[in-house]
Amino acid sequence: MNILVNEGIIPRSSFSIDIEDRGYQFGDGIYEMVKVFEGVLFEWEAHLERLFRSARELRIAISMNKEELTKQIQQLISIENLREGYVYIQVTRGVAARIHHFPEGVSSVLVAYTKEGKEEKKEELAGIHVITTEDIRWQRVDIKSLNLLGNVLAKQKAVEAGAQEAVFVRGGMVTECSSSNIFGIKDGVCYTHPANHLILNGITRQVVIRLLEKVSLELEESPMTLEALYGMDEVFITNTGQEVCPVIEIDGRKVGTGEVGAYSRKLSIEFHRLIDSVVPSKR
Amino acid sequence: MNILVNEGIIPRSSFSIDIEDRGYQFGDGIYEMVKVFEGVLFEWEAHLERLFRSARELRIAISMNKEELTKQIQQLISIENLREGYVYIQVTRGVAARIHHFPEGVSSVLVAYTKEGKEEKKEELAGIHVITTEDIRWQRVDIKSLNLLGNVLAKQKAVEAGAQEAVFVRGGMVTECSSSNIFGIKDGVCYTHPANHLILNGITRQVVIRLLEKVSLELEESPMTLEALYGMDEVFITNTGQEVCPVIEIDGRKVGTGEVGAYSRKLSIEFHRLIDSVVPSKR
Repeated sequence: MNILVNEGIIPRSSFSIDIEDRGYQFGDGIYEMVKVFEGVLFEWEAHLERLFRSARELRIAISMNKEELTKQIQQLISIENLREGYVYIQVTRGVAARIHHFPEGVSSVLVAYTKEGKEEKKEELAGIHVITTEDIRWQRVDIKSLNLLGNVLAKQKAVEAGAQEAVFVRGGMVTECSSSNIFGIKDGVCYTHPANHLILNGITRQVVIRLLEKVSLELEESPMTLEALYGMDEVFITNTGQEVCPVIEIDGRKVGTGEVGAYSRKLSIEFHRLIDSVVPSKR
Repeated sequence: MNILVNEGIIPRSSFSIDIEDRGYQFGDGIYEMVKVFEGVLFEWEAHLERLFRSARELRIAISMNKEELTKQIQQLISIENLREGYVYIQVTRGVAARIHHFPEGVSSVLVAYTKEGKEEKKEELAGIHVITTEDIRWQRVDIKSLNLLGNVLAKQKAVEAGAQEAVFVRGGMVTECSSSNIFGIKDGVCYTHPANHLILNGITRQVVIRLLEKVSLELEESPMTLEALYGMDEVFITNTGQEVCPVIEIDGRKVGTGEVGAYSRKLSIEFHRLIDSVVPSKR
């Protein structure tokens, strides 16, 4: 297996992360996970843009420009012969003797690897159960950083409760989930938290917002209270892996009828149409 | 240079961290930094206790018990012939294909290394300047975890403002600093934030609290408002590296007379007496 490290593609076994890599000691880095269909990067421009935005926010200098990185990632996919799966890209501030502030004269460390896998969409078809939990994470989750313990602990809580995802609630308002964004539909209006410092502006979130018009849903980017969430006709979550995934139960309460709703199903169909439109064999 | 990795001491150059180590991808790990004087670990029991507490809170299983870890760390100090400096110990949940929740069947990765260095105590003698900044970190900073971006960004802000430390303020109340605890003295009473989920209960903080009686200061573990902090007679910060370090300016305002105060100086002397009491050549 080969991986991309800074400007070169090398065997995974020949790469070693330093103990004093700031990614390892501070979580001082950023990442992206991009889906690949028939060797084609899905929504690549949006992921690339967000990666560079995260880097700017943390003032991490990525050693390549967007064109160079694109070329390297495409080459990695080609060398690894990745058909369906994803690419994980991570950039840390670099290696330096441990101090809290940004060290000088340090070069960032970029690592990317591919993962094969056609996901079974059982959950997405049947709908998932979620729980809610207090959002105690830091207030810059708009940066796609490696400081993910809050997300990890929330997801673990969901799994232990027999649910598939944890919904964060901050000060009574629903923000997002441990690894996804959340939408609620009520009377033809689709609600989701605005893309500010309290949520990660998911690429799938952005795509779904563009698709709302096609299914005759009106967008309302304002936070839902927990009570409002419980009372929605339909609820779904979005992320790169699960795409549009209906939620049929929240904290043990049925959402709407307890079945996957019509809008969620339509959005999922529209989403797959969009994927098909970029996949060579289906274009 | 040799390092400790799980149960063995090996050359640093022969150790490699995996890309999928959860410390690298999620900051899913914990750490301790312990001072060493004449080869003796200072306040080791307290650090050890806190390391195991952090591990319990995150449900990370450390592969050694306290006795074994103590023996290994002492052996590392001996092999590296460390006289004065510190030992850095880090434990991550381990290596697993990337999922948010705790993976099963994974062994934690413990890494420890030493760093030589007698610190010059110029700042501690002259007093430092600090700035204040909003505490936007997550609400489990009592766990000494690797999710340190909030601390990193605050320290960077301080450095860029020409200050030496950033004081966190949450909802108008002073919590702690980017890499230290903070104390204020007013009319013979010493104030500091209680050790709850909003601060890291520093070992030096705990030692200083024990020393307050010796300098006739009364302890009041309750948060100070920012205004109260500005109005203190004396302010000092504590951490493993800087011990008791007086603050003489906050946000450009003088603390008290703008000189290092008498209580701060006395506490620093008491602290060094304590160090001397455990150092072989001075006992």
